[in-house]
Amino acid sequence: MSEYGEKIKLTVFGESHTEAIGAVIKGVPAGFKIDMDKVLAQMARRAPGKDKTATKRVEKDFPDIKSGILNGVTTGAPIACVIENTNTKSADYSNLLDTPRPGHSDYTAFVKYEGNNDIRGGGHFSGRLTAPIVFAGAVLRQILEQKGIKIAAHISSIKDVCDEPFNPVEIDDKLIEELNNSSFALIDKSKEKKMREVVENARLDCDSVGGTVECAVVGMPVGVGGPLFDGVEGALAKALFAIPAVKGVEFGKGFESSRLTGSVNNDAFEYKNDKVVTKTNNCGGILGGITDGMPIVFKTAFKPTPSIAKEQDTVNLQTKRNDKLVVKGRHDPCIVPRAVPVVEAVTAIAVFDLL
Amino acid sequence: MSEYGEKIKLTVFGESHTEAIGAVIKGVPAGFKIDMDKVLAQMARRAPGKDKTATKRVEKDFPDIKSGILNGVTTGAPIACVIENTNTKSADYSNLLDTPRPGHSDYTAFVKYEGNNDIRGGGHFSGRLTAPIVFAGAVLRQILEQKGIKIAAHISSIKDVCDEPFNPVEIDDKLIEELNNSSFALIDKSKEKKMREVVENARLDCDSVGGTVECAVVGMPVGVGGPLFDGVEGALAKALFAIPAVKGVEFGKGFESSRLTGSVNNDAFEYKNDKVVTKTNNCGGILGGITDGMPIVFKTAFKPTPSIAKEQDTVNLQTKRNDKLVVKGRHDPCIVPRAVPVVEAVTAIAVFDLL
Amino acid sequence: MSEYGEKIKLTVFGESHTEAIGAVIKGVPAGFKIDMDKVLAQMARRAPGKDKTATKRVEKDFPDIKSGILNGVTTGAPIACVIENTNTKSADYSNLLDTPRPGHSDYTAFVKYEGNNDIRGGGHFSGRLTAPIVFAGAVLRQILEQKGIKIAAHISSIKDVCDEPFNPVEIDDKLIEELNNSSFALIDKSKEKKMREVVENARLDCDSVGGTVECAVVGMPVGVGGPLFDGVEGALAKALFAIPAVKGVEFGKGFESSRLTGSVNNDAFEYKNDKVVTKTNNCGGILGGITDGMPIVFKTAFKPTPSIAKEQDTVNLQTKRNDKLVVKGRHDPCIVPRAVPVVEAVTAIAVFDLL
Amino acid sequence: MSEYGEKIKLTVFGESHTEAIGAVIKGVPAGFKIDMDKVLAQMARRAPGKDKTATKRVEKDFPDIKSGILNGVTTGAPIACVIENTNTKSADYSNLLDTPRPGHSDYTAFVKYEGNNDIRGGGHFSGRLTAPIVFAGAVLRQILEQKGIKIAAHISSIKDVCDEPFNPVEIDDKLIEELNNSSFALIDKSKEKKMREVVENARLDCDSVGGTVECAVVGMPVGVGGPLFDGVEGALAKALFAIPAVKGVEFGKGFESSRLTGSVNNDAFEYKNDKVVTKTNNCGGILGGITDGMPIVFKTAFKPTPSIAKEQDTVNLQTKRNDKLVVKGRHDPCIVPRAVPVVEAVTAIAVFDLL
Repeated sequence: MSEYGEKIKLTVFGESHTEAIGAVIKGVPAGFKIDMDKVLAQMARRAPGKDKTATKRVEKDFPDIKSGILNGVTTGAPIACVIENTNTKSADYSNLLDTPRPGHSDYTAFVKYEGNNDIRGGGHFSGRLTAPIVFAGAVLRQILEQKGIKIAAHISSIKDVCDEPFNPVEIDDKLIEELNNSSFALIDKSKEKKMREVVENARLDCDSVGGTVECAVVGMPVGVGGPLFDGVEGALAKALFAIPAVKGVEFGKGFESSRLTGSVNNDAFEYKNDKVVTKTNNCGGILGGITDGMPIVFKTAFKPTPSIAKEQDTVNLQTKRNDKLVVKGRHDPCIVPRAVPVVEAVTAIAVFDLL
Repeated sequence: MSEYGEKIKLTVFGESHTEAIGAVIKGVPAGFKIDMDKVLAQMARRAPGKDKTATKRVEKDFPDIKSGILNGVTTGAPIACVIENTNTKSADYSNLLDTPRPGHSDYTAFVKYEGNNDIRGGGHFSGRLTAPIVFAGAVLRQILEQKGIKIAAHISSIKDVCDEPFNPVEIDDKLIEELNNSSFALIDKSKEKKMREVVENARLDCDSVGGTVECAVVGMPVGVGGPLFDGVEGALAKALFAIPAVKGVEFGKGFESSRLTGSVNNDAFEYKNDKVVTKTNNCGGILGGITDGMPIVFKTAFKPTPSIAKEQDTVNLQTKRNDKLVVKGRHDPCIVPRAVPVVEAVTAIAVFDLL
Repeated sequence: MSEYGEKIKLTVFGESHTEAIGAVIKGVPAGFKIDMDKVLAQMARRAPGKDKTATKRVEKDFPDIKSGILNGVTTGAPIACVIENTNTKSADYSNLLDTPRPGHSDYTAFVKYEGNNDIRGGGHFSGRLTAPIVFAGAVLRQILEQKGIKIAAHISSIKDVCDEPFNPVEIDDKLIEELNNSSFALIDKSKEKKMREVVENARLDCDSVGGTVECAVVGMPVGVGGPLFDGVEGALAKALFAIPAVKGVEFGKGFESSRLTGSVNNDAFEYKNDKVVTKTNNCGGILGGITDGMPIVFKTAFKPTPSIAKEQDTVNLQTKRNDKLVVKGRHDPCIVPRAVPVVEAVTAIAVFDLL
Repeated sequence: MSEYGEKIKLTVFGESHTEAIGAVIKGVPAGFKIDMDKVLAQMARRAPGKDKTATKRVEKDFPDIKSGILNGVTTGAPIACVIENTNTKSADYSNLLDTPRPGHSDYTAFVKYEGNNDIRGGGHFSGRLTAPIVFAGAVLRQILEQKGIKIAAHISSIKDVCDEPFNPVEIDDKLIEELNNSSFALIDKSKEKKMREVVENARLDCDSVGGTVECAVVGMPVGVGGPLFDGVEGALAKALFAIPAVKGVEFGKGFESSRLTGSVNNDAFEYKNDKVVTKTNNCGGILGGITDGMPIVFKTAFKPTPSIAKEQDTVNLQTKRNDKLVVKGRHDPCIVPRAVPVVEAVTAIAVFDLL
């Protein structure tokens, strides 16, 4: 349904090479101020073409708001935004109709839509569809900030080069602000050079690399979420796995906690300034599916971009024989830096929906 | 809402120490045969009290079907099942009202429900609520099997002792059947002794251990799922994170794929017996959120059971001071063996809903 | 899905002749007191067997609460209630398998469920399924009353004998209380005798009669509902048409307003005790899909019970020939008196969900 | 949420005087041909400015399709359409901010959105929002027609002038086609003159008139819908009450059936050409919430347009005193002729969603 949410509903539409893409957000209450410059800043972080880590396709990505915001204030009606597709080169994709790219949705979408889907640029599966998602997140996070809730993410790793993790017990506002304004968001900036080398090497090698993004939500009230199917983890995971290329999600210590004992993994409670806190935060701020007031901390794994210029084995769906493929077109050797604002955006959407 | 699904709706009700727990499954088509012995066999796999790895609480866990199945055939009306709670010792839990257990939902539920929730035995948060989930999964997987779809899971690891992984390209029926009938499901049975030792040591140490469960869905048609918020990963993750203690979910190579290059991680296509298959299955059977016809393979991380007999630091919500806690009552030192049928069950529910 | 609601979810299960019927209500906040005597009183109003207007089938209709209410207070977990079917005579219905009753769901359910549905007593289509609905309504209306919202309905007409309508501008508490405690709810009680005669005549004639129920919701805050698909009318109508035999719903002047001019139909605003009110209430308390603070007033049309003892033309689905049918079993010659608490209950459910 | 549907999701956005309005339809399968000329023809039927019965505001109402249809064929991705608002005169509406129009949403929306909603032209409550609904219906009904399902509606009455009703047992294709192509749809065309007189008199009198629309769905398979909350009546009613000004909905004989006996109202079954049919169709093609294969027939009541040029009593929300209002701007003295394609459209949407 290309839709997310219970209390709000986010609808995303468009294909990579149609006239436009866009988003409609329903259920946003009236009366909240939205700063469009902040929205544009988030969209710029996601936009391609900034440096060599990313695809050379340049889009202005301007969100044309059709309704729902009047004089910079939400009206209570659905917020609709249209982003024109101005820089499309459809010819590049012609051979994908017959020879699906390994690791991409070409084959599965062909079967699902019986050949009627718009293959150009990945169609509705394109990473470009994350632009309206970032728009929606950029609107909703401003409302969250007015309620004291902040979201920040950073490149946790690219291939095997790792950034420092968040201190899950205390994440200060200055760090959040720095990360929110960075187009290559790192806690330990000394890692940038090494990470860029890894990406550049992959590019020169006609290959790509994956990585992880760690994200934190600070300022959550205690008591959000619920047991079983109402848990915060499930809601966030459903949103995060909607990002193309995400193959894993873990909260707090995640997979590592499966190797620990309870006495080590349990987060002891204590009073601090008359408030109940936990001494550690191995659970990532969520107990029994419900927020405990500590930062929500989680990590998402991105597989390497499947579109690579190297020759690959594939099939030819017309001739029904095995074939070879060299993917043309403009592609990112590593989407992780651009994925950071996308992770923040879907997190904003999911958190807004939970409140 | 304690509810899951779009095409079907699963509702779970009850608390650990109320009169009963149960499930209602809506949207199941009429005319499918359900073998109650198979349902009971799955519920027995989850039921406690079988050996020293599990809590000593013994429940008969008999699912009393109130409607929806007539003479062993689904009628199209909601399938309702009630499981009486026959063996509850509420006195054991009295001190948890004041001193919440670290790592457990006591504190977050107390805040959310303003002290009105039923704390006894974890209330609606209890792992016992997985019994009606296993019931629902046991019904739905029989219908899936009639459509050629099989589900199997195994203990992938307990603490740092690992089982062999599935061969994600080919999983044979014999292995599936063996795992489905095992109460300590392993691919390499030689690991059982070492795993049981780890659990027994934790128990003797008044502690607990976590682990991972790997699960596979074999026989999925190509083309199930969709892009963005309609993806198979998101639907499964939402269901899996509903299982108490799950803190991570990854598909295919998951977090490992974030450390690979595209040329290594991409699964090349080839024709095999006139059918499109992939040579490897690093994507876990899902491309662009849509099944590719290969086995869906994923792993879930379980944190160690938070209820441990060791003394722990906590707070006293009455006196508003720091306090100590020793958890009494009957608890599993490791829930992973009993979690295997639960993972299979929620997978059956999620897959049924996607079809 | 046998389910209603967005903010709460009501699930109804069971068939007329299975072991039990029941309801699960999810999303009810913790901490509300529920008086079970009031619940039982509402269920008694709906229960059959009280007098000659109703079927002779007598059920105790005791709602056994399995979870969600502890010591008379909601816990925040799903409220589950099971009502045993104790007085079923399945033999009476045997010939309906072949010769569907005109005006009843026998034929359409047979086609939909391919003969697998439980035909006995109407199965999941039985009016008996309104018992768990009345249970749910009786719980939720107590919470509404704690918020100052009251609901009352009366028999507006049986066949062509009409009661007085509500004064839609002002409905006093005394009238509401009287109607809520009546098993033959009328504003003008002098009409009872004439109405009972009409019903008795139909019964003696082996026939049945229909009627209308008018309902009012008093104390609604201004601003509930929304435009287009979020309107109060649509939400209430969806709930009301779920009651078996309802064939029409109108708000305020309803169909009559289609024959008026705007200047007559429009409800002028005025200040009264510093509060905006309308001088008339032809719109039934809803403008643009949103409550205006006046009583919500609407009428539902019930067709005559289709199960009549008179011989009727039908088909034989086995012989594929035209046939005759005389319906046996115990049936109401007029369900309207018993429908009054059902209308109130679904109204409570729909209003609770809107708030 | 401005959203409708379970299997498809229709999202409507925009306000009367913002840059644009539009619709997104999700869940439409790939591979269906859509004739844009037919879509434009339906939108022209709804568009204003054709004659004196309607508002003088003229809009081109051109649906700019942004995605989801490629070369005239659905792609399986969401169908997004944007309709620019080209002819808006905002100045006309300035006094409505203080003095709400009787019978309109001005007051209730003001309270709900705390004064932040876009009041100009009715904002998101405007009848203009039915344009994207007609677009969606015009797309979906083409797919329904490819499955043999046709929809037609006519002006059943304007004030007290009535058209002939449908013959509910047999509605021929020629009549359907005529009605579908008419901008003043009547079965008995001789009534047009009298109806236009009634409207013209109201206009000259600075007043407005209401009316009813009868609609039929022909070619429905048996077995669509379900019991209780899954009934066809409830689904259609929820969609129909979303149309501004609808205050009543009845199926088959509707309110009249409440005055009949069962023996008269029941529709006897018979075999006709080896097919089960009913001799009459008082139930409007729906038994137990499920289609019986006969035409679905229902009537909707439209109140007279509330925007009239006559002076009316209202309040002034600034001065908090009683006040007078004369509504300026361009308004329809009778919306019923233009409502006919809107009723057909929401019917197409609801029926598509049920299938």
